[in-house]
Amino acid sequence: MPARVITHTKSKTLKQFTQVRDFTPAPKVTLKDVNQHVVAAQYAVRGLIPMKAEELREKLTSDPDSLPFESIINANIGNPQQLQQPPLSFYREVLSILQNPKLLETDLYANDVKERAQKLLNAAQSVGAYSHSQGIAYVRHSVAHFIQKRDNGVFADPSNIFLTTGASDAVKAVLEVLLTGEKDNGVLIPIPQYPLYTAALALKNATPIPYYLKEEQQWSTDIEHIDELVKSAKSFGITPKILVVINPGNPTGAVLTREAIREIIEVAAQNGLVIIADEVYQENIFDGEFFSFKSVLAELQNEHAEKFENVQLASLHSTSKGVSGECGQRGGYMELVGFNSEIKQLFLKLASISLCPVVTGQALVELMVNPPKEGDESYERDQAERKAIHDSYKSKAEAMYEAFSELENIEVQKPQGAMYLFPRIILNDVVKEVAESHGLKPDEFYCLRLLEETGICVVPGSGFGQVEGTFHVRTTFLPPGEEWIKHWATFHKEFMHKYAEI
Amino acid sequence: MPARVITHTKSKTLKQFTQVRDFTPAPKVTLKDVNQHVVAAQYAVRGLIPMKAEELREKLTSDPDSLPFESIINANIGNPQQLQQPPLSFYREVLSILQNPKLLETDLYANDVKERAQKLLNAAQSVGAYSHSQGIAYVRHSVAHFIQKRDNGVFADPSNIFLTTGASDAVKAVLEVLLTGEKDNGVLIPIPQYPLYTAALALKNATPIPYYLKEEQQWSTDIEHIDELVKSAKSFGITPKILVVINPGNPTGAVLTREAIREIIEVAAQNGLVIIADEVYQENIFDGEFFSFKSVLAELQNEHAEKFENVQLASLHSTSKGVSGECGQRGGYMELVGFNSEIKQLFLKLASISLCPVVTGQALVELMVNPPKEGDESYERDQAERKAIHDSYKSKAEAMYEAFSELENIEVQKPQGAMYLFPRIILNDVVKEVAESHGLKPDEFYCLRLLEETGICVVPGSGFGQVEGTFHVRTTFLPPGEEWIKHWATFHKEFMHKYAEI
Repeated sequence: MPARVITHTKSKTLKQFTQVRDFTPAPKVTLKDVNQHVVAAQYAVRGLIPMKAEELREKLTSDPDSLPFESIINANIGNPQQLQQPPLSFYREVLSILQNPKLLETDLYANDVKERAQKLLNAAQSVGAYSHSQGIAYVRHSVAHFIQKRDNGVFADPSNIFLTTGASDAVKAVLEVLLTGEKDNGVLIPIPQYPLYTAALALKNATPIPYYLKEEQQWSTDIEHIDELVKSAKSFGITPKILVVINPGNPTGAVLTREAIREIIEVAAQNGLVIIADEVYQENIFDGEFFSFKSVLAELQNEHAEKFENVQLASLHSTSKGVSGECGQRGGYMELVGFNSEIKQLFLKLASISLCPVVTGQALVELMVNPPKEGDESYERDQAERKAIHDSYKSKAEAMYEAFSELENIEVQKPQGAMYLFPRIILNDVVKEVAESHGLKPDEFYCLRLLEETGICVVPGSGFGQVEGTFHVRTTFLPPGEEWIKHWATFHKEFMHKYAEI
Repeated sequence: MPARVITHTKSKTLKQFTQVRDFTPAPKVTLKDVNQHVVAAQYAVRGLIPMKAEELREKLTSDPDSLPFESIINANIGNPQQLQQPPLSFYREVLSILQNPKLLETDLYANDVKERAQKLLNAAQSVGAYSHSQGIAYVRHSVAHFIQKRDNGVFADPSNIFLTTGASDAVKAVLEVLLTGEKDNGVLIPIPQYPLYTAALALKNATPIPYYLKEEQQWSTDIEHIDELVKSAKSFGITPKILVVINPGNPTGAVLTREAIREIIEVAAQNGLVIIADEVYQENIFDGEFFSFKSVLAELQNEHAEKFENVQLASLHSTSKGVSGECGQRGGYMELVGFNSEIKQLFLKLASISLCPVVTGQALVELMVNPPKEGDESYERDQAERKAIHDSYKSKAEAMYEAFSELENIEVQKPQGAMYLFPRIILNDVVKEVAESHGLKPDEFYCLRLLEETGICVVPGSGFGQVEGTFHVRTTFLPPGEEWIKHWATFHKEFMHKYAEI
């Protein structure tokens, strides 16, 4: 439909333009004309079920009694502040000053809040000015300091830190630089995986090499399987270039042991694979211990320098997860470890084409890696807020785990980290047939029924990948309260009863 | 160099990992292994001269008397707040509340500031929550309202508005969707152009089809030349798919007439070219009038629906320019006009892979398109601030134009809009030879000498494209005061004298 002109305040001048050239108009762009990689890419977190949830939400808004529930429970995406999680006060107070430096002249805030804001303002000049494309030097120094402390002293160089617009921006940059656009570029990704990876690989025309995580061993890695896959990919003419690890795992909630990380680095060193270590959930640990890939690599290099000196690693972090949960602020960083300087220059060039990452997001990264310290005026409040969020995550994860453990036809691994559970739902042939008759996969059908009966929105395992013939759902444990978990349990029992085999 | 382990707090546990597999380590990634399009891409705005400027700035910091000037004057990039331009108070007050909603309870701000903040908070829930990938509905409605008013009532549909992370994000999205990755995809770009376009095209492996602007006619478009190029590209097996227009022009400062826009739309309609209308400088008009591509298209459609109903247009705007100048906040929007819904769905999918544009940037877009109105408490202050910035731009542009007009060996077009002048520098064979002996292009040499003698950092015309044998520089007129323009004039005279032909 052509754009409609509703009024003409300048109708007189229009007349002079009634002459146009004589031509046959060309048709519009259609799906066959465009980038087929965009057409092919899929992104389940915001796919079929979440879209249906949006539809139901609108229905509830216009007619609150039209559905058997009062509201949509968004357990489909790790978006804590959508679900009433309060932001950390220290962050937001500092950020409010960065937006309006006149607040420095009021007595609203503690001294450490004002001092930090002043430091960041000195470094950025204004949050409205473009920064260096790699990120503000002051922030990169803070990040390096944080990493070095986290990794028990392993050196971190600020010149290897790139601030990014969330971690997804970092993933895209690594793929953009390292993948040549040829189909023979292979990328090892975990299955189940965060679907950003398959979507981004599809856009880059690369071949995903899925390595399966062992569900029965708390979704840990199987190094022999990965070794096999690398060999087999090569035999099919695929060159594995990158190995993606998500630790703590999304959607699995698993935390890798140091031993598992060491084995992965060995494979990478032997095969020249660049490791993307997606470590955005490093603060969300409930069980076990977080080891960064960087620290384990340093240990290996310390003992066997000649074998590990060529390992190249991009470690990603973000302000969206952890106890920060500042998803909408789009802060993140990437540390490039072991890359030649000519390759780092390419990352800088790529960053410069997008001018700079959002400056308030950069400031937030600084606040995340350098929170108030003991003795600072805001320290106790900040600690209390952090503890409250962390404890609530831990208790919700456990409550959910226990609720699922008691149900039949559902198997769940104990959550160790991140914000998710990825329970396996045992679905029989009756469900498979009914689902098929609706044109749905069995796990999609389960999720759709869950949504329609309870308002709970979760993502089918098929969006993340799963062993053929098994079915899962990914759910966050972020929604407030535990009432919704009870509703899910009730739904589950009724669903299983309804579709029981005769 | 392997990462160094400085301390070992866990040295006992390390011992168990001394066994590693037996393998020959693979080499590191080198330039020949990576994406050659990234290697090939060039981005002059942050290229050789700005990098040299950074070096000199550091030298001045460590030894303030080491150079013949006191500071670097960054006229290389349109970054107003780096150059002491104050942000608009209304924007920043609202944004400070979005970061810290407790400020609503204070009496620091006017009522319209608080009301707007409350509306945006209601719409976003929290600036720390992911929004809809296409952008917050409330903001998209405000944008549509703004466009409709700007275009004298031409209908704007909120569902066609995509909020973006600056306008560069929008450019990348359009290219990602429309270009197939084949070399035969042609994109018409103006010469001189903003080098983001050539860089982004290089990344997408597309073939730029440069159309030259007519310098002697205030850098306007030459439609016969564009027609010729489309034909000739086709005869070489290139399929022109996109036509980029920057209006007001960067780096030229030109403002297109309605007649020129009409002719461009005719070419697009005839040849099925999607128009990217980069209209980020639409507020920066000093001479002439801004006509949006959308409004001219609507006029044509109104009179000749059958000829123009298939025209597809992506119009870009940003919070970085205008009197807003909020570059670091990365706000922007794109209006997609005339696209089939299946194509719009691809844009939405692409946006969803990056989750969402920064939410504070989205809020800033809303503030830009919907500033305080007459009668609002903040109206007068806001108007006064806007007028001060606009007047200062206009007077600086004129001062610079006049200064250059009086000089020999420099030719300058009267600036009509944007933030730039693109004067032509007449360089003789002596300069060319000296430049060549330094491995530089003649305009690079001029810019480097200007930088080294005065601290003024501008970008050589070769980074934007120019007619073979002509030389230009792009300068913003943003640096405060007019003293620096005098220094430039003095430098210019001395340079021309020094390299005069004998």
